[in-house]
Amino acid sequence: MSGGRLAVVGLGPGDAASRTAAADERLAAATDLVGYGPYLDLVAASDAIRHRSDNRQEEQRARLALDLAAAGRDVVVVSSGDPGVFAMATAVVETLHRSDGRYHDVDVSVVPGVTAASAAAARVGAPLGHDFCCLSLSDVLKPWPVVEARLEAVAAADLVVALYNPVSAHRPWQLGRALAILAAHRPATTPVVLGRDVGRAGETTTVTTLAAVDPGTVDMRTVVVVGSTTTRAFAGPAGRTWVYTPRRYPDATS
Amino acid sequence: MSGGRLAVVGLGPGDAASRTAAADERLAAATDLVGYGPYLDLVAASDAIRHRSDNRQEEQRARLALDLAAAGRDVVVVSSGDPGVFAMATAVVETLHRSDGRYHDVDVSVVPGVTAASAAAARVGAPLGHDFCCLSLSDVLKPWPVVEARLEAVAAADLVVALYNPVSAHRPWQLGRALAILAAHRPATTPVVLGRDVGRAGETTTVTTLAAVDPGTVDMRTVVVVGSTTTRAFAGPAGRTWVYTPRRYPDATS
Repeated sequence: MSGGRLAVVGLGPGDAASRTAAADERLAAATDLVGYGPYLDLVAASDAIRHRSDNRQEEQRARLALDLAAAGRDVVVVSSGDPGVFAMATAVVETLHRSDGRYHDVDVSVVPGVTAASAAAARVGAPLGHDFCCLSLSDVLKPWPVVEARLEAVAAADLVVALYNPVSAHRPWQLGRALAILAAHRPATTPVVLGRDVGRAGETTTVTTLAAVDPGTVDMRTVVVVGSTTTRAFAGPAGRTWVYTPRRYPDATS
Repeated sequence: MSGGRLAVVGLGPGDAASRTAAADERLAAATDLVGYGPYLDLVAASDAIRHRSDNRQEEQRARLALDLAAAGRDVVVVSSGDPGVFAMATAVVETLHRSDGRYHDVDVSVVPGVTAASAAAARVGAPLGHDFCCLSLSDVLKPWPVVEARLEAVAAADLVVALYNPVSAHRPWQLGRALAILAAHRPATTPVVLGRDVGRAGETTTVTTLAAVDPGTVDMRTVVVVGSTTTRAFAGPAGRTWVYTPRRYPDATS
């Protein structure tokens, strides 16, 4: 059977206006959509068959999508944000790698999107305007000591830190520990941005500080951006609190 | 005079298909486009007045844009990639902060886009699939010792590293130094991705290794992604070299 094609498509933050034209084009052409249920629900208009799965089933989802494409279907694997950032592109490419040439005829591509950190940052200004990192706090696939060592390293190096997968029911304490590591290297007044469901119904973006942030208000649908020592917050137009990290970094010797 | 509005809009990698609908909407409505000349050229169809500037004039550009908006115009500041990542959103928000309420009536917003690291990563698979950072190698606004300290920190913490502004005529040696720091912590076979002009005419994406990469082939229009110790490259569909960083990180004790 001749090979079909498979695109891992990033929906961006969630609203249709934040999708790229390339993403819309692949969604419109698809015969089959594969993804986590709530992400499939973000794709309103499509006659494609929807293959829903649970959140943890990345590998089965990737194999199903590749099998459908190998059978000649036009498949889209739906991801929120950018599919390359803690999302489905890795699972698909890893499955390709392990498949021993089985999907050789499939036309595979990744259609990038606006990642959650960029979307949340845009709501408050430009907290990612200087060197930053994106870390996942999940220890499902990564030992917690590795997470802590990375937090220590980027805290000491004064990078802005965007935390993905900040909490779950199984590990409610980890965000508090992560913030404590960062607070050991940064002032209590350091701005913290909590972007929850940005671009979706009921979105909220909160600006707080390392001293005031309550990890209990954060859930898995939130991205947490912690400023560096140079990140600033101020009251600006429309009564909003704006946050930015200046492009200029002070001389280490001054 | 009643306030106009200003959006700092991310064009994404450059092709119209990689722009969001929200970006297109603001570009179509704009009376004035402000930006670095080559980025303005990426916006093909628009009747707006184009205010071109050189690359280094971020602050003048931000003030011009805010002045136009304060005078009632519908202004778009054009940025490549995501405007919040080493781009114009910071300059605009910093100017707002320093303006002492002068632009209080201006409706300011940031429209996020696909950042260069995501675009380059998508071309080869998912090298950013695990913890990563985005660092600018420019020392125009940041002392070089800070850059080196950050490289040492993220190299030791085994983050994937995306390097923005990797070289310029004034500092041709810095990328070689950065790669040497990373190579001290990672195998010679570590995949390196060079994405040049991704999404634009004549784009190239090259997959090489820390041992083989030639800094002399890299220019300012390239984003450089250096894998972690777990990043893998392999020959996959369509004879392409694919790169990904697995979601699973090996146990530090094993």
